[in-house]
Amino acid sequence: MSDIKNISREFLPEPTLRRLPWYLAYVNLLRANNVEYVSSTQISKELNVDASQIAKDLSFLNIKGKTRIGYEVKNLERELQDFLGFKKGHNAVILGVGSLGAALIQDSGLSNYGLNIVAGFDVNPNIVGTSICNVPIFDIHDLETQRQKYNAEIGIVAVPVDKAQEVADLMIKAGIKALWNFTPFRIRVGEGIVIQNTSIYSHLAVMYNRLGSQKDRQR
Amino acid sequence: MSDIKNISREFLPEPTLRRLPWYLAYVNLLRANNVEYVSSTQISKELNVDASQIAKDLSFLNIKGKTRIGYEVKNLERELQDFLGFKKGHNAVILGVGSLGAALIQDSGLSNYGLNIVAGFDVNPNIVGTSICNVPIFDIHDLETQRQKYNAEIGIVAVPVDKAQEVADLMIKAGIKALWNFTPFRIRVGEGIVIQNTSIYSHLAVMYNRLGSQKDRQR
Repeated sequence: MSDIKNISREFLPEPTLRRLPWYLAYVNLLRANNVEYVSSTQISKELNVDASQIAKDLSFLNIKGKTRIGYEVKNLERELQDFLGFKKGHNAVILGVGSLGAALIQDSGLSNYGLNIVAGFDVNPNIVGTSICNVPIFDIHDLETQRQKYNAEIGIVAVPVDKAQEVADLMIKAGIKALWNFTPFRIRVGEGIVIQNTSIYSHLAVMYNRLGSQKDRQR
Repeated sequence: MSDIKNISREFLPEPTLRRLPWYLAYVNLLRANNVEYVSSTQISKELNVDASQIAKDLSFLNIKGKTRIGYEVKNLERELQDFLGFKKGHNAVILGVGSLGAALIQDSGLSNYGLNIVAGFDVNPNIVGTSICNVPIFDIHDLETQRQKYNAEIGIVAVPVDKAQEVADLMIKAGIKALWNFTPFRIRVGEGIVIQNTSIYSHLAVMYNRLGSQKDRQR
């Protein structure tokens, strides 16, 4: 048991960590369809990832495939879920309860992946003191106290872009260990702080450009 | 003028397209602070991207920096906005108006980046026929007709993971040219269709793993 825990806390390469949820999503489907075994070749075909890469990624897990049969689907699903921490609750606070912040609080889907947004913070007196889907919204001055109370380690940055760095610094000072940045601003953090940037705006940029260049070619 | 248009429709490398919104966010701040000029070296320092890379990325734009002074901030901001298409409206439909779909419709911030969600589609009779923030929700059978009516080229996939591929196929059949996938399922599309996958679950996987391995190191 302690072995499994040690493995699951290993510091994995980020590309591997990014691929594991894809495997989980596919394995979820297989299990729902009562499929018993899956090989890395099958996963490879379905997800368009090199089979040897998949075998390597899955080697970090406490699971072994059988020759010519592959991985037991149920086992693989459970191991991936445990490993990814999607079944464990991780408390998060959100800074900025504007349109995006409120939307994230309302997206109950995040809790299926282990993320519990426990509190929101804002400067707007009209929303401070209210709650959204039972998540209380506090004044930003209460960040440190409330963060401790809820034992939240993850901080979601959903403020206007010109406040992103300031708010990130505040969160780190208040004890936040990982920042999930939804602004297009590149936040700088010191060593030991985890940062993940969403790329919503980058996705839009890519889509618009590709749509535009397709039209040019059709002319 | 026609020159500018041709440039703006060029098929750019995806990494460049992903970085341009970062530059725009930074330049927005500079303009708000009445800064007149910025060099690629300054942007490099601020965003932690190689200065020569920045110069190369910006060379796709219709703008030239001056030696030792750099780029005019106002000009650079306008060129980036035009180039990225964030000022132009792009109509999108959303398939799946559950918790995430409804949240995306409610996030008015997306329209600041040129994305207009014009209609939602679902199979749930309780929400079909209603509207969210004035965005009408239709039955999925009306997808083709409504898509044409709204002239939407972008389709957002916000359905449960086991419906992702099916819904993507439906959208492409109905004339959608670009898919923005919010499920962790790897959707397959034919040639000429643009696909962008959000990595929400991957971000969570990375954060959970990093937080866990930090704790191990502290023990």
